[in-house]
Formats: sequence, C-alpha cells, structure tokens
Amino acid sequence: MILTRLARPLLLASLLAGSALPAQTHTPAPSPVDAVDPFIGTSGEGHTFPGAVAPFGMVQLSPDTHVGPARQTYNWAAGYRHEDPTILGFSHTHFSGAGHSDLGDFLVMPVSGDTVPLEAGTADTPGYRSRKADEVASPGYYAVTLTDPGVRAEMTAGTRIGVHRYAFRADKAAHLVLDLRSVIYDYPGKILWSSIRIRPDGTITGSREIRGWATPRRLFFAIRFSAPLTGHQFVTTEKDVLYKGFKGPGRGPETLVSLSGRAIVAQLDFSRIAKPLEVKVALSGVDEDGAIANLSSEPGDFDAIRAKTRAAWADALGAVQIAAPAPMRINIYTALYHSLMAPSIWGDADGRWRGPDDQVHGPSGFTMHSTFSLWDTFRAEHPLLTLIQPDAKNADFVNSLIAGQKTNPFGILPVWQFAGKETWTMIGYHAVPVIADACLKGIKGIDCAAALKAMVASADYAPYGGLSDYMKLGYVPIDREPEAASKTVEYAYDDWTIARLARQLGDAATAQRFEKRAANWRNSFDAKTGFLRARKADGTFRTPFDPTAINYGSDYTEGNAWQYSWFMPHDQGGLFRLLGGDAKAVAKLDAMFDYDNSKIDYSHAEDISGLIGQYIHGNEPSHHVAYLYSYAGQPWRTQERLKQIVESQYKPTPNGLAGNDDLGQMSAWLVFTALGFYPVAPGSGEYAIGRPFVERAEMRVGDKRFIMVADGLSDANRYVGTVTLNGQPLDRSVITDAEIRAGGELRFTMQPTPNKIWATGVKARPYSMTGYGKR
Amino acid sequence: MILTRLARPLLLASLLAGSALPAQTHTPAPSPVDAVDPFIGTSGEGHTFPGAVAPFGMVQLSPDTHVGPARQTYNWAAGYRHEDPTILGFSHTHFSGAGHSDLGDFLVMPVSGDTVPLEAGTADTPGYRSRKADEVASPGYYAVTLTDPGVRAEMTAGTRIGVHRYAFRADKAAHLVLDLRSVIYDYPGKILWSSIRIRPDGTITGSREIRGWATPRRLFFAIRFSAPLTGHQFVTTEKDVLYKGFKGPGRGPETLVSLSGRAIVAQLDFSRIAKPLEVKVALSGVDEDGAIANLSSEPGDFDAIRAKTRAAWADALGAVQIAAPAPMRINIYTALYHSLMAPSIWGDADGRWRGPDDQVHGPSGFTMHSTFSLWDTFRAEHPLLTLIQPDAKNADFVNSLIAGQKTNPFGILPVWQFAGKETWTMIGYHAVPVIADACLKGIKGIDCAAALKAMVASADYAPYGGLSDYMKLGYVPIDREPEAASKTVEYAYDDWTIARLARQLGDAATAQRFEKRAANWRNSFDAKTGFLRARKADGTFRTPFDPTAINYGSDYTEGNAWQYSWFMPHDQGGLFRLLGGDAKAVAKLDAMFDYDNSKIDYSHAEDISGLIGQYIHGNEPSHHVAYLYSYAGQPWRTQERLKQIVESQYKPTPNGLAGNDDLGQMSAWLVFTALGFYPVAPGSGEYAIGRPFVERAEMRVGDKRFIMVADGLSDANRYVGTVTLNGQPLDRSVITDAEIRAGGELRFTMQPTPNKIWATGVKARPYSMTGYGKR
Repeated sequence: MILTRLARPLLLASLLAGSALPAQTHTPAPSPVDAVDPFIGTSGEGHTFPGAVAPFGMVQLSPDTHVGPARQTYNWAAGYRHEDPTILGFSHTHFSGAGHSDLGDFLVMPVSGDTVPLEAGTADTPGYRSRKADEVASPGYYAVTLTDPGVRAEMTAGTRIGVHRYAFRADKAAHLVLDLRSVIYDYPGKILWSSIRIRPDGTITGSREIRGWATPRRLFFAIRFSAPLTGHQFVTTEKDVLYKGFKGPGRGPETLVSLSGRAIVAQLDFSRIAKPLEVKVALSGVDEDGAIANLSSEPGDFDAIRAKTRAAWADALGAVQIAAPAPMRINIYTALYHSLMAPSIWGDADGRWRGPDDQVHGPSGFTMHSTFSLWDTFRAEHPLLTLIQPDAKNADFVNSLIAGQKTNPFGILPVWQFAGKETWTMIGYHAVPVIADACLKGIKGIDCAAALKAMVASADYAPYGGLSDYMKLGYVPIDREPEAASKTVEYAYDDWTIARLARQLGDAATAQRFEKRAANWRNSFDAKTGFLRARKADGTFRTPFDPTAINYGSDYTEGNAWQYSWFMPHDQGGLFRLLGGDAKAVAKLDAMFDYDNSKIDYSHAEDISGLIGQYIHGNEPSHHVAYLYSYAGQPWRTQERLKQIVESQYKPTPNGLAGNDDLGQMSAWLVFTALGFYPVAPGSGEYAIGRPFVERAEMRVGDKRFIMVADGLSDANRYVGTVTLNGQPLDRSVITDAEIRAGGELRFTMQPTPNKIWATGVKARPYSMTGYGKR
Repeated sequence: MILTRLARPLLLASLLAGSALPAQTHTPAPSPVDAVDPFIGTSGEGHTFPGAVAPFGMVQLSPDTHVGPARQTYNWAAGYRHEDPTILGFSHTHFSGAGHSDLGDFLVMPVSGDTVPLEAGTADTPGYRSRKADEVASPGYYAVTLTDPGVRAEMTAGTRIGVHRYAFRADKAAHLVLDLRSVIYDYPGKILWSSIRIRPDGTITGSREIRGWATPRRLFFAIRFSAPLTGHQFVTTEKDVLYKGFKGPGRGPETLVSLSGRAIVAQLDFSRIAKPLEVKVALSGVDEDGAIANLSSEPGDFDAIRAKTRAAWADALGAVQIAAPAPMRINIYTALYHSLMAPSIWGDADGRWRGPDDQVHGPSGFTMHSTFSLWDTFRAEHPLLTLIQPDAKNADFVNSLIAGQKTNPFGILPVWQFAGKETWTMIGYHAVPVIADACLKGIKGIDCAAALKAMVASADYAPYGGLSDYMKLGYVPIDREPEAASKTVEYAYDDWTIARLARQLGDAATAQRFEKRAANWRNSFDAKTGFLRARKADGTFRTPFDPTAINYGSDYTEGNAWQYSWFMPHDQGGLFRLLGGDAKAVAKLDAMFDYDNSKIDYSHAEDISGLIGQYIHGNEPSHHVAYLYSYAGQPWRTQERLKQIVESQYKPTPNGLAGNDDLGQMSAWLVFTALGFYPVAPGSGEYAIGRPFVERAEMRVGDKRFIMVADGLSDANRYVGTVTLNGQPLDRSVITDAEIRAGGELRFTMQPTPNKIWATGVKARPYSMTGYGKR
C-alpha cells in the first residue's frame, strides 16, 4: 500500500473526477518487487522457473536441473524442479508454466580446476553438473552456490540479454562449459544443427537449429566476457556422421575458431581470476549480427543490468498496488510477476524478426513478440494486460499476431506460437478474441479493420481443425475430427468476438454471418443429458458417452463433458435456458463442484490437476465456471466457490500452484479474482464481479487510477454486502471495462452472511448473447 | 572466322594503332554458339554436365542419371553420365567438372497418367525415372525425350532461373514430381532440413539445408507454372522421427499448403494440358523472398529466356573468334564454354548474399560469386577470364573473394568455396595469385590495398595447413602436416604473388618479407635426388622415398615427386640451376614425359588420369610443365610436347576430356595453348609462348582486339619458324599481358622443322625470380 491515510481523500476526489494521479510526496512503501517469490510454482504442477527475466524479456536465464529424455519430461517443462539436488547449468530460454517441454538454449556452467568434464553427468556420476546450496531469487535476479566447483553463480537479465556472474575460487583455474547439445526434452535428432565461433574481437557467436515443439526453430547468440579468454576447445561429440567433409584449419579443438555440427560442446578457459567473471549473452532469432547488435544495445555490467531490470519490474508490478496480509500479498505479486513474462519479445533491437515462414522480416514499426499460449491466455491473461500494460505494449501483441498471420504459410493467425514459429498446439483460433478484445477496448496503435480481415481469414480457413465441416454442418463432426465437441464451442465463442468487432466497425454482413456462427455451440449440445457432446456427421451424438472420461484426442480437449458443457462464455443465458432455468443451472454447477471423484483415476492425463469435484482449476476450461452462479442470479454462490478455489489452489510455496501456470493464465486468474472481478467473456467489454481477496488495490490504467476497496474483509466477512462505484450503489454483478478505464473507486463492504438480494435480478447479471446483461 | 579477307588490312592497321575495332559491315559468320558440344566431357573423366546454363549463371539445369550412394559417386560428380540409359529428373545445380560429388538441388520430373510414383526407382525397377531418347544440347539449351511418360523435356536457364518445358501427351493427366530428397552423393543425414509451401498466388517456394561438401549449405527456390495447379500432395517419407510435434491444418497430404522435414517429395497435378507446361524456377542463397524476387527479375517465357541466354553465350564466346577445322573448332569452343561457367553468380538480384559465416550480407556494390575451385583455376582459368571477360566481371570475382575473407570465421580468403561456404578442399591459398594477378594487370574496380591486406591475412594465418611451422621453419614438416612437400611449394608461389603486388603498391616491408618466403620452395627440394621431397621437422627428408608413389595424405597432393618437382612457376630458372643446368633440366623433363608406367597402377587414385609417362594432364600440377622446355632455351621441345598433349587429351566426344574439367581449368589450358601462349606464372604479367593450334584467332580484350595468326599451320608444319608482334620480329618465347591488352597482332610462321635458334638465349626466356626473363 503506497498511499498514506492523509493522501487518500485528495486522491479519491481526483479519481472521482477522472483526472490523473497527483504527484506523491510521501515516503515510498516497500516495493512490490520484494513481495515476489519466483520459486512459487517451480515444484508440483506449476512448471515455472526461478531464474532471471525482465518483463516480457526475450531471455529467461535460469538453472536447468534435468533436460534429458531419460526421465519423464513433462515435470521438467521449465528445465528445473525445486527439489532436484543438482544443477547442470544455466540456459537462456524457458517457458513460464507451459504444459510441454522445450527450450533450454545455450547452457553455460562454470567449472573449477585442471580437469574440465565436457559431459553433464548425472546426480550420481561425475560431470560438470554440481550440487546446489543457498538459492535465492527475486524478479530479475537468481543466485546459487555450486558446491562442487565452489562457485557462487548469479544471474540477471535485460530485454534481450542475460548476464551471468561467477565468483570462482582464487586458487583454481576458472572455466566455463558452453554445451550446445543441451536442450529441454532431448531426443535423437532434435538438434538439427549448431555452430560456434570466436570472432577477432573475442566475441563468441553461434546458433542452434532445433527440431522441437516449433520446427525448425533458429536461435543465435553472442557472448562477451569481463576477463580475457586464455584458451578454448571446440569439440564435436557426434558419432554417426557418414561424411565429415574436409578438415578446416587447426590441428586440435584448441586451435579451432569455428565449429559446426549436431553435437558441439565448448570449453572456455580464463586461468585464475580474482574478480568474479561476468558473462554477457544476447540472443537473436534473426542472425549472429542481430545477436551482436542486441548485445551492444544494452550496455552496462551485471550490477547495472540488474538494477535496470529491477526498476522495470518495480514499474510493471507497481501497476497494481495491493494491501493484503503477507501470504496473499506474496501470492498475488508472484502471480502478477508470472503474468508479465509472455508474450516475450522476439524481434531484434533493430526491429528485424524471423517469422513463421522461417524468413527474416522487419523492421515493421512495432516490437515483434512471440510465445503466444493463446488457448490459455485469451481468457484472463490478455484481458489483464489490456488494463495494466500500456496501449503500446498491447498493440505490440496484437500487431505481432497480425504480422504472424501475414507471414504464416497458411495465412492464419497464430495458434500456439513461440520463437516466431507455429506449434499447432491446442485448438481454436484464440488470437481472434485477443485482438477483438483489444480493439473493442479502444487500445491505440492497432489497425482494427486490417485485424478483422486477419481474424476472418483464420475463421474461414477450411483445412484447419475441421473448420470445413464446421462451416457446412454448424459443428465439428467427431467422426472426421478429434476433440470435436470442444472445437465446436470454442469456434463459436471466437466467432462471436469477430461479430462484435465487425458490428463496431460497421461491417454488418460479417457481423451477421459470425453472429450466426456464434450460436453453433447449440449444435453440439445434448439437451437431453444436459451436456455438450461430440456429434457425428450424420447428426447423432457419439456413444458410448461418459461425462467423466478424459482422454487425449477424444471428444474433448484436455477435459470432459463436465468442464466443457459450460464453455459458451458469450451465451451463458442461452445455456441456462437449455438446462431448464437458473435453478437447474445452479444445481448442475453444484453437482460439478461437489462431484465424488473417489472412483476416478486421471493420472494418465498430464494437465488434469487441481480438482474440486469435476471443477479442474489446474486447467483452463474451468477457469470461468465459478463465476457462472452470478449468471444464474446467485452471486453469493460465486463468492463461496471463489474462496474455496483461492484457498485450495494457490499457496506461497514451490508446489503452490495447482496446475501449469500456462504463460500467466493461472496467475492472471488470481490477480483478477483477488481484485473482485473477472473477464468471463473477453470481447464483451465486461467483467463479472466475484468478491475481493485484498483489502485494497490500486490499478494504474493508462493515466488513470482505479481503486478497489474491500471494507471489513476478513476470513469471516467472506460475502459481499454492498457495492459502490465512485460512491454510488452498484446493483449489478458486472463492472464494465469503460468504468475501469475512466478511473474511480469500486468499494465492497464485506459481511459474514450472504446477501441474497444484491445483483440477483435478470438485468443485474453479466452479458449473455441471447439473454440478460445487454447494457 | 568472322572477318572477310577484304576487311583484314584495314583492321590490322587500326589494331596496330591500338585503337578500337571499326564497325563491321560484312555478313556475320556462323555463331561460336553452334560450335559448342555440351556433351563433351559428360562421360570418361570430364565430369561435365550437358544441361542448360547461362554464362556464370547461378542455375545449372541439367538431367541427373544417378545421384545415390549405392554406386561409386565420383563418376557422377555432375549427376550425369552420357552412357546411362535412364534419367531420374532435372535438377538446378551442378558442378562443371568437379572432382567431388555434390549439388543436384530441387529435382523435377514429369509423370503422365493416373499413377504417380513418388520414388525414383532404378533403371530396372518402376519409379518416376524414365528411359531417354533424342538428346540434344547447346549453350543454354538441353532437350530429351522421356520415353516412359512420353514427354519431350526441354531446359533453358537465365542468370538466376531455370525454365523447364514439358510437352505431355494430350490424352494423359500431366504431373510433376518435385523431389526434395534427391541429392548428388546421398547418404543418411545429408539433407538436414527441407521445406515446401504453396503461396496464395500459386507460387511454390521452399528450401533445403544440406550437410555435404560445404556445410551447412542453404538454398531456396521459387517456382511458377504456365498452367494452373489442379491438385498436389506434399508427402514426408521420413521414418525415424522420435518426436513429430503437433499436426498442422489439413487431413492428408492433398490439403497441406506447407510441409517441412528431412525427406519431402511433392506431387504437382495439372490435369490434361494441350500446351507444353512451362516451369520457371528461381534459386536464392538468401531466402524465399530472394528467390521470388530473382524469379520476377527475369521476365519472359521459355523461348524468350532461351533466346536471351543464347545471345549472352554468343557474346561471351564471341570474345574469341577462331578459325580452325571442325574438330579443333568444336574442342576449343566447348573448352571456352566450359571456362565461362564458374565462378557462378551467388548473390541475389537485390545484391544480398549468404556468406561463409552463414549470415546474410549485402548489397555490397558488386555481384557476389561463388564456386571457386581455386587450386585448379588460379593456373589458367582466371588468367583467361582476365583477358576475355570485362573488368567488371573480374572485379566481381576478386571482390567476392575479398568479401569471403571478411565474412569468413577464420578471416582468411576462400580455399575451395561454393554456395558461399568453405569446403577446405585441396591446399594453398590460391585466391592470393588470382587477386594479385588481377591487380597487377590493372583490372578496374578492385581496392588492391585492401586486397593485399586480405592476402597477407590468409598467408599469415598460422592454424591453416601447417603455416605455423612453414613460417618458422621455411617449409611444412611432413611429420606434422600431410602433403607437406606440395604445400611448401604452393605456399612459396602464392607468397611470391603477394610480394609482387606489395612491390607494386610500394609496400617494401611486405614485399621483402614475402620475397623471402617465395624462396621457400628450395627448403623442400632435395638437390641430391633432383626431386621435391617432404621434409621432417628435424630437417631430414622423409624415407622411404618413391618418386612415383601417389597416395592421399602422403607427401604430395594428388600427385608425386615427378609432377611436383616442377612447381616453382615463379622461379624455374632457380630450379634449373639446382638441377645442374638447362641440359639436365631438359633431360629430366624428357624422363618425365617418356617414363615407362607399365609396372605402375594408379587406379586407386581418383584424379590421376591422362598420363603421358609421369606427365599427368588429367590433373593440374602438370599443366605448366610442357612449357618449361622454353625456360631451358628449347622452345621447339615445348612445341612437340604441346602437340602430343593436345592430340591425346582433348577429343570432341563425351569421353573426350582426359581429366576432370575442374570448373574450367582443363578447358582454359586448351584455349590458351591453342592461341599459342600460356600463363605459366600468373602474377608475372607474362605468358610463355608455345605454339598455336588454330589458323587464326581474334580476342576481344577490353575495347581492343588482339589477333593471333598462324601462317602455314598444318599437321606437318608443327614448329614455330618466326614470330612477329605487330609486324616486328619477336625474339623471345614470351608475350606480356600489356602487349596483349594494347591490342595488335601476334603472327607465327609455322614450319615442318624445329627452329633451334629462336628464343634460345637467356634473355629470351620467360620470367624467373632468380634467373632470366626480368623485363
């Protein structure tokens, strides 16, 4: 909480007038940076990493504890698990909370003494891997003691750089191993090609091409050191090469200035050095020259970069100032931290970027971003960023999506993209709601007419995911396309956001066409059983039908009929009528949350975690469901379920996340929920009101401030009593985006018993296409 | 012969005055283009290809008859052998006469009917391979009937494009197979990656990355068709992929618009088409956009491109107008044709190019060229091009070499480079004499001071090929570096050319340093045996010593003491004194030519062919040796040996070349020799006079004309009687480059008996560093 009591009345007055925040003269409170614990989610199901990263930075410099294929890779999606006793090095790229394993580029590890092992070894066999001690981490900083070489290792990161600092023992020779073979989720042939060379000025540059999740992914690096290189070896360990070509200059690896191949490891020698060695590494997706230019574009030593990145985090996290007790404050600021990492910067400092066509483009007038986990992030992560990040940043995201469509060989928007490349992971065309939501919220810097064309091109691309049949039949038939039920409802929602934008842009024909498609969720809904079901091309529902079954490639995507039957966020009123009315809808919601799972085993399904009955908070399809009680006129039931979820699914510990953080979506859910509202249907311009979990929050929204106050909040006072907006009673369970952007104060008065009158009327409920809530 | 008798006196008068050629008004003679037979060298040892290519064109569009690993690949270095009964397709890149197998990019093959095989098959098993009939070829044009699909196939090529024309049977469906798996000299893992996609406008683009002779080599293509594509399949046949990633849009290969992988083949359908199908293909080393731009930069259909390229050949070949009987005329024009293919254009139409560092550079103010077979071509090929190609073209070559040095990870000039990439093939730093020769001849458009720096950087690069020891000991020691004897003498010659250029540029220190190194050939010469020998670091010569032994990695490079003992082209006088004088030198030359090989088997050595005793015309180290009699004051003996070589080593038949053409070196030898002179020591500014093999030749040198007349030439009149230059007696066996560039007439009067007086005096002999001939 940064404001003194004295300053508040003045501030409130200015906020009510919609004006900007006045200059502050009081002593600053502790920075939100210090409330972040990067270890949260690094064990259990979170798949986060503890290393150093700048907000939306290209580089995620973090320790890897396991990268190989030998053990299950899913649990090491970010290369690291907190409980692992050893570290094998520090690599420069990591996903924050992905459900698939990849990255881990350009692993660096310090080694002391005369013998330099060039293999990592295992926790039990010798190698450059070391035991660890005294780990600490904060935004933009990570440190650990590597007890085997006796080196204190520190990491920080800038926008396109990572900086290592290694304090070696003064009595032993200092070396680094740079292992171009190391990759998260390794298998034969994954590293297509790699190269390394020493340039005349001592800069080391190189590249990798990886055949992994996004294929082929190219990444380039440039490295400079604070101490002179006194020797080196470039070694290839590849065994199965039939033809090796002619030999280049030099007799042994110690004289090679350049080496390329599929299995390269470098030993870099620095003799004995008294001062800690600083290793500054830049990445580029374009080329080595790009990496060198990126390196030069961020001058300064370790401490300078660390300070700059800490300031950037203080600014980014400072967009939400929260007053809450320590466990909740840590949870929320860590969630906010995790929501400010992706989409990551992908374009070079000079504006060039490598696209999905594997060609170099730009400069394009914006900063290219990638790592779009859109099936996850369209829900709450992107809506959160539209509020707490500048318009220019949100425009970068949207313009990156549109540029991705223009340069995609199929001419469609990104689905699940990183390193500029498509992975074809998950379903839907959820770049569409991200773009529509940004345009409908009036984010500046987007050509929304051009955006609409890109959206329509994706939605009409027949070869993608059963769209040809969807456009003909009104649903995706399960006998022709897997996960048909999920696809049908997600397409319908995406279509609705196209219609919304087309309507705003005055394109009535497109609006009408996609409004019709938006109703397609009904074509896969079985009113008789009350569940969304996969339907065959002949019109019949597929049997046998088990609403609790979860299998990959089945009727649903990472879920079952229980979760997916609620996915028509734009038309919950229509659903409730189909179910037989509000009371039956509430009963079905209760049946979902209270389901007895004792006879069910989901251990075969990787993403299924965080279960509350058949509500599965560890995966995204459930994320909006607790808010649906409000759509049925029972907001106090939403309030109860939110308490149940927040308390069971988020803890300030390494295994404190109930599911994959999914590039910020799990975290964004908590940030919104803690503030008291949530974007159930991005594109609607509305947030459903739940209940707050912090005493006070102040959001920076553009040049305005929006304050949330929860008077009387306590464990006992768990229900919303009254709500006011800017001092006036708010008699609906909805707040609009325009109301938030105008600045002001949303004040809850909490109480120990349900208020069964507030926001129960039909007009007081959130937006629904065929029902209530059309404001 | 293009000039009438009437025109000659006038022309001669103008030539004597050094003025430009007057406008011609007579009827033009048959074009030299029609004297070229592209099949010469496509069997036997020549390794040439019969397909379509423009002068120095990026594309060599030619039939492949065998590309796989199953049979010996050396004989299919250009993908084709004339005697093979079947063709498996037409690919876009080929070496002309290389001694190593590679290229064969983007194989296209027409298929008729309803069944389209996607495997080539063998000559005996079904596949898209076809039997052939009615082959014809001329510069820029190749045609063949593919009897199995019943298709007449024609090929032509522009600067960066190849154009196919296929006349299909009207009653069968027309298809093309585009096989991205096909590569000359195939082995597991050679194709690192490939991709293909159809762009919205119907253009097909794609790429390959090859792990071959130059690694990794990247090449991109763009294809457009004269008829609409009616269907397609993109198929991957790769079997051993552990992780395939998620599936992109489309159900089967017929709906894919894009595919990438290690083993891709495409079927392209055109239904039944009445008009021949034209397929226009552009290449680029930069990216797909570059290929598209290259395609657009050369508009026109098959006939237009063919006519344009024919005109380009007429102009390039027309630089030497020859009067000779048919067999000799065909041999020489085909040789000239083969000498005008490499170095090939490598930069894109927009000036960008991919360098040895695998990065994209440019535009750089010149057209980047690659395919530098420098160990071969520094001898006669590049000196020929300095005379008959414009300064701008020669400057392109030299500037490409210098750019290659600047972007080489080792900072040294190209050794054996293609596709912008170094292969580390053969020995020496023979870009150095190419650049020195061009600078010393005053070729415009070169920064010779910068060039000298690049040359010195290469010559002083210690890790390369024993240079560290060479600089310390004055020779390369065989116990530390293979092929040490050959390396020592070739370095010494290269060093001499550095000294020559440094002297001209006024850099006395560099000149002195490299003049000293130029004498290093003596440090590996054993005066006792009279042979160049490999010496060990302790100063002793390596034993056992067999001057006839030829083994890879032994004391010599693709040769033995017999050939290599003559390689000090800058100091033959010094050699002859070491050998004991002119008479002993002549005796030793005779011993070489007349050596009885009946007890020797060289069948294990690939490049050893065209033997006349121990003179081996099929490989380069011998190429200057016949001229050395003139250095000993016995030019009539040179004349005899030249007749012996020309008549035995060059025939107008597919197996008419005695050895690999080596990107024009074998051919350039014949062109020079036929004209009556040869550049024994490029960098000397001199050509040793031999004897002419054509009645008359007229060379276009810049804006001047240089005419050679051989009065009375016949099989009997095989000796030079008298020689005049511009009407004045020429009493030396040397003509200078300046004399040729000034324009004029060199007139030989031939006779049946040796003239044992002409050019026998010491001062009349060609240049030698420590002997005669310093003009």
